[in-house]
Amino acid sequence: MVESWSFLDTAESNFRPLVVIELAKGTKEETIEWFTKRIVDKKADGGAQLLIQPLVMENGVENIYLVGASHLRLLLGAETVGLVKECSDNSMRTFTYSSRKTFKHFADDNHNFLTMAECQYIIKHELENLRAKSEKMIPGYPQAKLYPGKSIVRRLLTSGILVQIFPLHDREELKKLSHSWYGRVKVGYQPLDDIRCYFGETIALYFGFLEYFTFALIPMAVIGIPYYVFAWEDYDKYVMFATFNLLWSTVILEVWKRMCAILTYRWGTLLMKRQFEEPRPGFHGVLGINPVTGREEPVYSSIKRQLRIYLVSLPFVCLCLYFSLYVMMIYFDLEQWALDYHKENESNFSSLMLYVPSIIYAIVIEIMNRIYRYAAEFLTSWENHRLESSYQNHLILKVLVFNFLNCFASLFYIAFVLFDMKLLRQSLATLLITSQILNQFAESLLPYWLQKRYNRKMKKRMCSKKTDTDLSLAEQVNMEKEMGTYLGTFDDYLELFLQFGYVSLFSCVYPLAAVFAVLNNITEIYSDALKMCRVYKRPFAEPTASIGVWQLAFETMSVISVVTNCILIGMSPEVDALFPDSKMDLVLTVALVEHLLLALKFIMAFVIPDKPRDIQMKLAKLEFESLEALKQQVRAFQMQL
Amino acid sequence: MVESWSFLDTAESNFRPLVVIELAKGTKEETIEWFTKRIVDKKADGGAQLLIQPLVMENGVENIYLVGASHLRLLLGAETVGLVKECSDNSMRTFTYSSRKTFKHFADDNHNFLTMAECQYIIKHELENLRAKSEKMIPGYPQAKLYPGKSIVRRLLTSGILVQIFPLHDREELKKLSHSWYGRVKVGYQPLDDIRCYFGETIALYFGFLEYFTFALIPMAVIGIPYYVFAWEDYDKYVMFATFNLLWSTVILEVWKRMCAILTYRWGTLLMKRQFEEPRPGFHGVLGINPVTGREEPVYSSIKRQLRIYLVSLPFVCLCLYFSLYVMMIYFDLEQWALDYHKENESNFSSLMLYVPSIIYAIVIEIMNRIYRYAAEFLTSWENHRLESSYQNHLILKVLVFNFLNCFASLFYIAFVLFDMKLLRQSLATLLITSQILNQFAESLLPYWLQKRYNRKMKKRMCSKKTDTDLSLAEQVNMEKEMGTYLGTFDDYLELFLQFGYVSLFSCVYPLAAVFAVLNNITEIYSDALKMCRVYKRPFAEPTASIGVWQLAFETMSVISVVTNCILIGMSPEVDALFPDSKMDLVLTVALVEHLLLALKFIMAFVIPDKPRDIQMKLAKLEFESLEALKQQVRAFQMQL
Repeated sequence: MVESWSFLDTAESNFRPLVVIELAKGTKEETIEWFTKRIVDKKADGGAQLLIQPLVMENGVENIYLVGASHLRLLLGAETVGLVKECSDNSMRTFTYSSRKTFKHFADDNHNFLTMAECQYIIKHELENLRAKSEKMIPGYPQAKLYPGKSIVRRLLTSGILVQIFPLHDREELKKLSHSWYGRVKVGYQPLDDIRCYFGETIALYFGFLEYFTFALIPMAVIGIPYYVFAWEDYDKYVMFATFNLLWSTVILEVWKRMCAILTYRWGTLLMKRQFEEPRPGFHGVLGINPVTGREEPVYSSIKRQLRIYLVSLPFVCLCLYFSLYVMMIYFDLEQWALDYHKENESNFSSLMLYVPSIIYAIVIEIMNRIYRYAAEFLTSWENHRLESSYQNHLILKVLVFNFLNCFASLFYIAFVLFDMKLLRQSLATLLITSQILNQFAESLLPYWLQKRYNRKMKKRMCSKKTDTDLSLAEQVNMEKEMGTYLGTFDDYLELFLQFGYVSLFSCVYPLAAVFAVLNNITEIYSDALKMCRVYKRPFAEPTASIGVWQLAFETMSVISVVTNCILIGMSPEVDALFPDSKMDLVLTVALVEHLLLALKFIMAFVIPDKPRDIQMKLAKLEFESLEALKQQVRAFQMQL
Repeated sequence: MVESWSFLDTAESNFRPLVVIELAKGTKEETIEWFTKRIVDKKADGGAQLLIQPLVMENGVENIYLVGASHLRLLLGAETVGLVKECSDNSMRTFTYSSRKTFKHFADDNHNFLTMAECQYIIKHELENLRAKSEKMIPGYPQAKLYPGKSIVRRLLTSGILVQIFPLHDREELKKLSHSWYGRVKVGYQPLDDIRCYFGETIALYFGFLEYFTFALIPMAVIGIPYYVFAWEDYDKYVMFATFNLLWSTVILEVWKRMCAILTYRWGTLLMKRQFEEPRPGFHGVLGINPVTGREEPVYSSIKRQLRIYLVSLPFVCLCLYFSLYVMMIYFDLEQWALDYHKENESNFSSLMLYVPSIIYAIVIEIMNRIYRYAAEFLTSWENHRLESSYQNHLILKVLVFNFLNCFASLFYIAFVLFDMKLLRQSLATLLITSQILNQFAESLLPYWLQKRYNRKMKKRMCSKKTDTDLSLAEQVNMEKEMGTYLGTFDDYLELFLQFGYVSLFSCVYPLAAVFAVLNNITEIYSDALKMCRVYKRPFAEPTASIGVWQLAFETMSVISVVTNCILIGMSPEVDALFPDSKMDLVLTVALVEHLLLALKFIMAFVIPDKPRDIQMKLAKLEFESLEALKQQVRAFQMQL
């Protein structure tokens, strides 16, 4: 039985490098030997049964390895990770090797049945699931402890022996993709399916959301333009705009869920069973028995974690929020002081001084955001979450709350304490536009420029003037390993989330916000695409079925925006004039309208189904089939009795 | 293979009757023959493979049949319906016949491994899944059409040939159960596990909720008593009470989810896979192909149904709501008129006249509720829902909205239009207490008394003075088939829902409401228990994992109660006095507090996990095991390769 597996190692002559492993320079020989042996060892012997080749560099240093796998090995791996692929009858099913013939485009000699991103995901999964057997430590590194079942790769990473693992770019494919994505000036959709094939579902879903969100903002932008052009200031027009905005933002968020279900159904991730999540690399604790798996692994008391969250993290976050508000108050004081100073001694210097508080505040906000981000990451890591998903959720929540306050607190203050609508509009415009320009610059153009310069330097050093596609494998690996690492979609979503805040929170004061958001997002698509294709290392594909916690964040923002818009409308002088006798009636009317709108929002969210009917039908069909199969099994068993 | 099944028919000598089938008098001989043959036919021939015996009555009429099944048949049926039972290692697992030895209390000769309710549920399931093969109609009844796959029992029911199917009581068990449940005066919990064994999970969960809810109300009641005793009228005490109430009602609803998970995990229904739902008996349409199952069955366009819902049902419900409000306005006019009349000519007659409007209104409300209930049932049935669950949800929604308005509209009017807190308190007390008394009477005592009288008559006719347990089988069946049918937990939950409304919506005006609710619920437990055990036919057990849509209904009520309580507190003269200068500040403060409370509610609902940690762990363990088993399969397959 085991014998028959051996042909996997040699049967395929064409070794296709998929993933790069970079070890620390000076890693001990015995460690390398042990590690590579574990990688190529047969499954039955507890290995990963992959192929590995050292990459010989010009300078003769041998710390970079290329990992690949035979075609058959990848197909079996696809079954292990539970990949869902399309069948010949257009339905989506979990891939199994035994039923491989029923899948669309499957042929024993078709090596493109699995996309390169899928192959790389499978290899990553297999590498991460390479587990220690009886080893007590990593050979050559007694301080890097192991215990049965511990992921070897994770231990190598945490002990610094393994520098990084990353998937290789496919220069051919990348060129094709970037051409159809952003290479030509065209009006049309992004090639989402191609993006998904190349970068995986998480990133494709981000671009899908970005595109969807941009299209969804267009109606708001179109309606917003005449307000600017004709300088409409009528009360009823603003109310109409705000009401439209509120209902529209509910509708687009609900419809996105449906779009998302359509996309992820087509990509197979909607049906993909969640894998059993491993402890995240940073998780530590005393060695004990995991009550779920029954395996020996570090355990950490959940009560301790709760205590850390509620007694340390929560007060710290509150303190930071308070501090941020305090800084904001200083800013307003400074502003007032600058204004007074300008009034007293009107000079060129004093009018320059008018800008100083804003500039200082902008810089301080940026600094606070960065410091807080580090603090949040440190705290969340200190909370010692066992799962990556739970770590991410806690981090996102912390960062989100702080960023929300930092970005919008001054606007809230201007709107609801100073009651200065003109200043609000002005601040909103300034904040929105400058933040967009800064983001675009810092996020894409700067790294792109740095990368370009670096590449030029590299090529010069290699004394050759080849184009990208002509690079040798060694040159390509050498170049890619120096590229920055894409840290996930967090910052991209955060940017969109804050933008959504600018557009919706005070929409009735500044209808033009949506126009700027649309313009920004169009360039954002291009600059993000550029960033993915040219600036960063290729990231591993991550299957996902939705945008996760961000859906909740956007929905919360849209609820808050109902409240703010209702108050803003209630405060406008036009509405004031409608209730000349009693301010009381005004406030009560506004409160009533707000509650009705909120109720309407919740009812709409409840009534609009999360999945389109045909996806529901397809899911029901699959469920029915599996129930039927179960029944058949029972029946077959009863027959045999 | 098929041969080996035949021993099931005869192997067991002791036929234990479980379910009674009553056919219409004068059912044709050929129909009875065909139907009973299909019931006893082997599984392989498309039969149900159950046991059936005619019940010979004294008057010689033979239209009642007893259905049972062999022990082995029931075990196989338990696997078919996906029953979850406890294993020897205390974990809950889906029962399969092949793994039967691993289950707690299993022994080949232990016929109590499955509870009687489970056996009856299995038989009901098997009977309902007895499907037409090539028959075009029910033999003897050409108008009762059949098509391949149509449930025979459902067609027999809809064409009136089958009068009813009901499970038999177990007099012995029932006596034990009723003794421990309500037979002795004691303070303590209900025997929920025994109730579940006898009546099934849906009913046990209702009693579990009733008990939990009663306990949960006790703190409110205890805090409410001093308000009445010391006639506290201070503003801050009311605010404290209301705030406590609001947070408490969120907490109890969240904690109930956890309690519910604990109960249903223990009962196995939390893990039970949802069966594929069959079309409900009343569903009709043109014969077509079901896109999910691929079977021939009636299909009905979803768009037509949506049109019926949104163009007919929704306007009708709105009209009814409007009409109900209109009637309420007439009531207030009448009330005013009676008051004026009393003032003008003060006499005994005129003071009697003061009560007339209330009485008329109460009667009219009751009549409207009943008519509306019929209309709602008719409309929902006309909407032609394919699934029973969807029918139930639409019916519950319709009835809930109308009942809510009917019960609380007058209170809302008194509170927020008339601003008469004294009248509000008085009306609230009257409505709560009278509705409770009426309910208790109409629901339990009246049917019990009627049943008792009927039983006496029956026994007299049988010319015997035996006690209940000594009845012969024929006498027992004869008596039970005349008992009323329990129509499900709908009305019981509705009553609790309205009670929750009385307690929470205006809690800060009438803190004593919780006291009455607790007192009512204690007697309610007894009267409902009495009702289940003595008044109604035994209902079929229905596995369920939660109280379903009622959780949502209670949560919605608690959100509404935040709004009403905040307004009431804001309107109280004590609070008014705190803001002597500006009503505006008052309203704004109230609005702010309300929003903060609502936000707090949502955060609490988000933070409190729906399932207790140990249940989560157990579920995770099961999931892990099934993933591991899958991996083992894959690995075993890979080894064989």
